[in-house]
Amino acid sequence: MKLKVYLSGEIHSDWRNKIIQACKDAGLNIDFYSPVTDHSASDAAGDVLGEEDQSFWRDHKSAKVNAIKTRTLIKSCDIAVIRFGDKFKQWNAAFDAGYCAALDKPYITLHDEDIIHPLKEVDASAKAWAQRPEQVVEVLKYILS
Amino acid sequence: MKLKVYLSGEIHSDWRNKIIQACKDAGLNIDFYSPVTDHSASDAAGDVLGEEDQSFWRDHKSAKVNAIKTRTLIKSCDIAVIRFGDKFKQWNAAFDAGYCAALDKPYITLHDEDIIHPLKEVDASAKAWAQRPEQVVEVLKYILS
Amino acid sequence: MKLKVYLSGEIHSDWRNKIIQACKDAGLNIDFYSPVTDHSASDAAGDVLGEEDQSFWRDHKSAKVNAIKTRTLIKSCDIAVIRFGDKFKQWNAAFDAGYCAALDKPYITLHDEDIIHPLKEVDASAKAWAQRPEQVVEVLKYILS
Amino acid sequence: MKLKVYLSGEIHSDWRNKIIQACKDAGLNIDFYSPVTDHSASDAAGDVLGEEDQSFWRDHKSAKVNAIKTRTLIKSCDIAVIRFGDKFKQWNAAFDAGYCAALDKPYITLHDEDIIHPLKEVDASAKAWAQRPEQVVEVLKYILS
Amino acid sequence: MKLKVYLSGEIHSDWRNKIIQACKDAGLNIDFYSPVTDHSASDAAGDVLGEEDQSFWRDHKSAKVNAIKTRTLIKSCDIAVIRFGDKFKQWNAAFDAGYCAALDKPYITLHDEDIIHPLKEVDASAKAWAQRPEQVVEVLKYILS
Amino acid sequence: MKLKVYLSGEIHSDWRNKIIQACKDAGLNIDFYSPVTDHSASDAAGDVLGEEDQSFWRDHKSAKVNAIKTRTLIKSCDIAVIRFGDKFKQWNAAFDAGYCAALDKPYITLHDEDIIHPLKEVDASAKAWAQRPEQVVEVLKYILS
Amino acid sequence: MKLKVYLSGEIHSDWRNKIIQACKDAGLNIDFYSPVTDHSASDAAGDVLGEEDQSFWRDHKSAKVNAIKTRTLIKSCDIAVIRFGDKFKQWNAAFDAGYCAALDKPYITLHDEDIIHPLKEVDASAKAWAQRPEQVVEVLKYILS
Amino acid sequence: MKLKVYLSGEIHSDWRNKIIQACKDAGLNIDFYSPVTDHSASDAAGDVLGEEDQSFWRDHKSAKVNAIKTRTLIKSCDIAVIRFGDKFKQWNAAFDAGYCAALDKPYITLHDEDIIHPLKEVDASAKAWAQRPEQVVEVLKYILS
Repeated sequence: MKLKVYLSGEIHSDWRNKIIQACKDAGLNIDFYSPVTDHSASDAAGDVLGEEDQSFWRDHKSAKVNAIKTRTLIKSCDIAVIRFGDKFKQWNAAFDAGYCAALDKPYITLHDEDIIHPLKEVDASAKAWAQRPEQVVEVLKYILS
Repeated sequence: MKLKVYLSGEIHSDWRNKIIQACKDAGLNIDFYSPVTDHSASDAAGDVLGEEDQSFWRDHKSAKVNAIKTRTLIKSCDIAVIRFGDKFKQWNAAFDAGYCAALDKPYITLHDEDIIHPLKEVDASAKAWAQRPEQVVEVLKYILS
Repeated sequence: MKLKVYLSGEIHSDWRNKIIQACKDAGLNIDFYSPVTDHSASDAAGDVLGEEDQSFWRDHKSAKVNAIKTRTLIKSCDIAVIRFGDKFKQWNAAFDAGYCAALDKPYITLHDEDIIHPLKEVDASAKAWAQRPEQVVEVLKYILS
Repeated sequence: MKLKVYLSGEIHSDWRNKIIQACKDAGLNIDFYSPVTDHSASDAAGDVLGEEDQSFWRDHKSAKVNAIKTRTLIKSCDIAVIRFGDKFKQWNAAFDAGYCAALDKPYITLHDEDIIHPLKEVDASAKAWAQRPEQVVEVLKYILS
Repeated sequence: MKLKVYLSGEIHSDWRNKIIQACKDAGLNIDFYSPVTDHSASDAAGDVLGEEDQSFWRDHKSAKVNAIKTRTLIKSCDIAVIRFGDKFKQWNAAFDAGYCAALDKPYITLHDEDIIHPLKEVDASAKAWAQRPEQVVEVLKYILS
Repeated sequence: MKLKVYLSGEIHSDWRNKIIQACKDAGLNIDFYSPVTDHSASDAAGDVLGEEDQSFWRDHKSAKVNAIKTRTLIKSCDIAVIRFGDKFKQWNAAFDAGYCAALDKPYITLHDEDIIHPLKEVDASAKAWAQRPEQVVEVLKYILS
Repeated sequence: MKLKVYLSGEIHSDWRNKIIQACKDAGLNIDFYSPVTDHSASDAAGDVLGEEDQSFWRDHKSAKVNAIKTRTLIKSCDIAVIRFGDKFKQWNAAFDAGYCAALDKPYITLHDEDIIHPLKEVDASAKAWAQRPEQVVEVLKYILS
Repeated sequence: MKLKVYLSGEIHSDWRNKIIQACKDAGLNIDFYSPVTDHSASDAAGDVLGEEDQSFWRDHKSAKVNAIKTRTLIKSCDIAVIRFGDKFKQWNAAFDAGYCAALDKPYITLHDEDIIHPLKEVDASAKAWAQRPEQVVEVLKYILS
C-alpha cells in the first residue's frame, strides 16, 4: 500500500517538514504534496497573466492559478492533512476541508486545542484531529501497517 | 422559474432578513433556507443525545447534528449566499463554500472590501461577490427576470 | 423545509410508531418511509416469482425484491434512522448504513449502550447516535426548527 | 489483467492467508489488501490522538482512523472479498458490503451455510457466495484466465 | 410512497396494458411510462428532420429521437420492467437493461423460461425475473404495501 | 409525461417564440426556460456588483451572473434546444452544448445547412439536428406522444 | 498515448485475433482485454461455487462471476469494441453497449449490414460502426496518430 | 508532481509546439496531448468506415471518431489549454471548454484581447486567460514549482 498525502493549510511554521521527515525516517511509502508555500509567490501567481490595478482582481487571478494546483492535488490524493495555525484567517484551509468532505476524501485536521470551538464543523467531517505533527505521523504509520 | 436559496454564514447581523424581505417585496419566487441562527441553540444541538464533559465532543455532536440540516439544504438549493462578517473565525462559512464548489453549486459571497485578501480562494470559486444585501437582491431579481 | 425520513433496521419493537407519532403530535413536516416490517411477508417477498427448493435462492429472490423498495427509499430520503435491537444479526441494517455512507446520505443510529463496541464503524459514519426514540424526535425537531 | 483484491471482515481465522498463499502458488497477478487485522491494535488506532474516558469516544476515534485505511482500500480495489465468521456481530463487514454495493464495486461473500438467512440482503448484492477460501481462489483464477 | 415505472421492451403483445390495468384495479399509486410502441411511428421518428436515402442514417436519426424520450424516462423512473418476447432481436431492450444497471436503477425482467440462457447476463443484474405480467403486478403491490 | 425544455443560444431572431407558441397551440405539456435574451441587459448583469474599468472584468462578472441562471436551467431541464444563427461567434452556445454532453443531457441543435461543417463536433453529440423551429416542435410532439 | 481496448461480444469467430494481430503488426500502443471467450467455460464459471439443479440458477451464478470480470474491464477501458455476429441472441453484447453508454464510455460496433435495423439503438449511441475488423484497426491507428 | 496537459483548439498556428518546447527546455514534468491537428486528416477520420454522399454524415462520422480521441484525452488530463485563434468558428474549442467545465476539469484559455467579449462565458469558467503561449508556460512552471 502506498499513499498520496496532501498537506493543506498554514504556511508559516515547519509542520510540513516535520511530517515529511519523520515519515521518511520511518520508511513509510508516502508521496507528499503541498500547495505553493511561499506566501508572496502565491499572492503573485497570476501576475504573469497581466498586471491588475484592483487588488480584488489581482487576488482573483492568483487564487485561480493556485486552484489549478490545489484542486488537482486534492482530487488525486488519498488523504489530506489540513493545518490551522494561530495567525491569519485561513479560510482557504476551511474551504479545502469542505471540498474534501464533498468528495468523500478523508482528511485529518491539525490544530491546537484553543480553536476547537470555531473549527467544530471542520472537525466534525474530519477522520481525525491531531494537535501535533507527531500524531499525524503515528496515524500514517498505522494506516500503512 | 423558482429558486431555492440557502443563506449560509454569519449569524450576528440581520442580512438574512434584509434579503428575504426585499425579495418578498419584489414578489420574487424564491424559497429561502437557513441554518439554525440562534448561536446557543446551535452549540447545544447535540445535548439531547447525552451530556459531554469534554468540550471537543460536545462541539462534535452538535456540529454533526447541524450538518444534517446544512448539508441537506446545500444539496437541495439552487444557489447559496455565503456571508462573512467582521467577527469570529467563520470557518464553517468557508467550509460551506468549499462544499458548494465541489458539488458545482453556484454561490455568491457577501462581505466587506477589507477581507478581500483572506477570502480570495473562496471568492475565486464564487459566481459573484456582493458587498451589500441589496446587491444580492438585484442579482436574484436578474436571475428570475 | 420538509423532510423525508427512512426508518431502517429492527422490526420487532414499536420504535417506528413512537417516532412517527411523536413527530405527528409535534406537527413536524416529515414523510416517513419504512421497509416491509412484517417478517414473514418480507421473507416471502419473492415467492410469487416461483417457489424454490433451496433456501438460499428463496432468500435471494426475496432479498432482491425487498431491495427494490429499500434502495429506492434510501436514495430518495433526506435522512435515515437505523435501529439496532438486541436480537438477530441485523446485517441488513449495517448494510444500509454502509450504503448511506457511500451516498453521503446522513443517518442517525438508534441503539443501546451495550452494543457500542461492535457498532463503532457504523457509528463512526453516522451523524448522531441516539439511545431512545425520543432523542431522535428531538433531533428532527431541531432540524426543522 | 491485474487485480487489486480487498479482504474485508472476520479477523480470527486464517482465511486471508489461505487465499493469498493459494493465489501466489497459482502465480495469479493479484495485489491483496487488508484492514489492520490485529484486534487490539485496531481498537487502539485512535489512542495516539489522546486518551478518552468514554468508551464510545475511544471507539469513535479508532473507528475513524481505521476508516481512512479501509475506505481508501475499498475505493481503489477491483474486487472485495467479505468474510463473515461464526463469532462477533461483524457489523463492520456488512457495512463494507453496503458501501461496496453503493459504489458498484463487485464483492464476493465468504461464509458458512448456517448464516444464509441473516445474510440474505448482503448476499443479494454480492456477485458470488463462497463457503470456502478455495472457492474464492478458483473464482479469482477464472477471472484472470 | 408513489412509484414511477418504465415499461421497456417488446411492443407486439399487450403486456403493458395488462400491468397498467391490474395496477389501476388494485389502486396502486404508480405512474407508468413507455416508449413509443407504434412500430412504424418509432421507425419514422426522425423523418421530420429530413429524408434519408441510406437506411442506416434513417435508422440512426430515428433511434436518436427515440433516445431523447427513453433516456429521459429511464433516468427519472424508480423501477424499469423490461420485456423480452419471442420475436425480433430486441437488442434495444438489452441495451436498456445495461443502461439501468450502470445507473443502479432497479429493473425486473419479464420473459418466458425458454430464453433463460441467452438472457443470463441481463437477468444477473435484474432485481427480479417474472414470467407473467401478473407476477410483476404482485411485486409492485408488495413494494407499495 | 411533462418536459422541461431549455432554449439556449442565438438571441436575435424569434425562434424561441415560434417554438413556445406552436407547442402551446398543440397543447404540449412543456415548461420552457431561456437565458436572459436582452443583449444589453445580459452584458450588464454584473454591473450592480460594482463598475469595472476593464472590459474583461466587466464581461467576467456579467458572464458569471448569467452562469448562475444558465447552469441551473441546464441542470434541471430534460432537453436543451441549442440555436446557432448566422451572426456573432456564439461560443456560449457551443459551450452549453459541451456542458450538456458531459452531463449526458440530450440536446437538439437548430441551425442552417451552411454551418454544418464548423458545427460537426457539436452536432455529433446532439440527439437531433433541426433546420427550422417547426421541426423541433414536431420532435417534441413525438416525444410527448 | 496508450489505449486500453475491451473487445466485447461474439465469441465464435476470430475477429478478436484479427484486430489484436493487426494492431501489434502496426506497433500500436494498445492493451487488449476480453471476456472469457470459451463458451462452455463461461457457462460453467459459477460451478465451483456449488452445483445447481435449476438451469436458471446455474446461469445466474455463472453470469455474475463473469460480470466481475467484464464490468471491471469495461470500467477501466478507454474504448470498447462490441461485435454482433449472425448467430445467437447476443443480448449480453447489447447489455454491454447500454452499460458503456450510461458510463459515457466510447464504443465502436462491429457488425454486418443486414442487422442495421435491429441494432439501431445500439449504433445510435456508438461512436462508430465498422463492418470489418480492418476498419476498427484503422480507427485505432487514427486515434493513436 | 507530474501533469497531463491537453492542448485543445486552433490548429493553424504553432502555439502547441511553442508550449511543448518551452516546457521541455525548462525541464517540466509534463505529458502533452493533442487532437489530430492535420485538418484534412481530421475531416477524413471517418472515411475508412465507408464513404458518404451527404456532407452532414461524412462530418458526423469523422467528428465521432475524433470524439473518441478527444474525450478520452480530456477525461484523463489534469489541465486543458484551449486556444481560440482569429480564423474559423472554432465551436469545437468552445464545446471542449463546456465539457471541461461540467467535469470540473481546470482549463486555461489562450486568445487575443479582441475576442474577449464573445468568449466571456468561456473565460468565466476558465481558471486563467493567457494571451501568449509564454504565459501558459509560466503558469505551468508555477504549478509544478
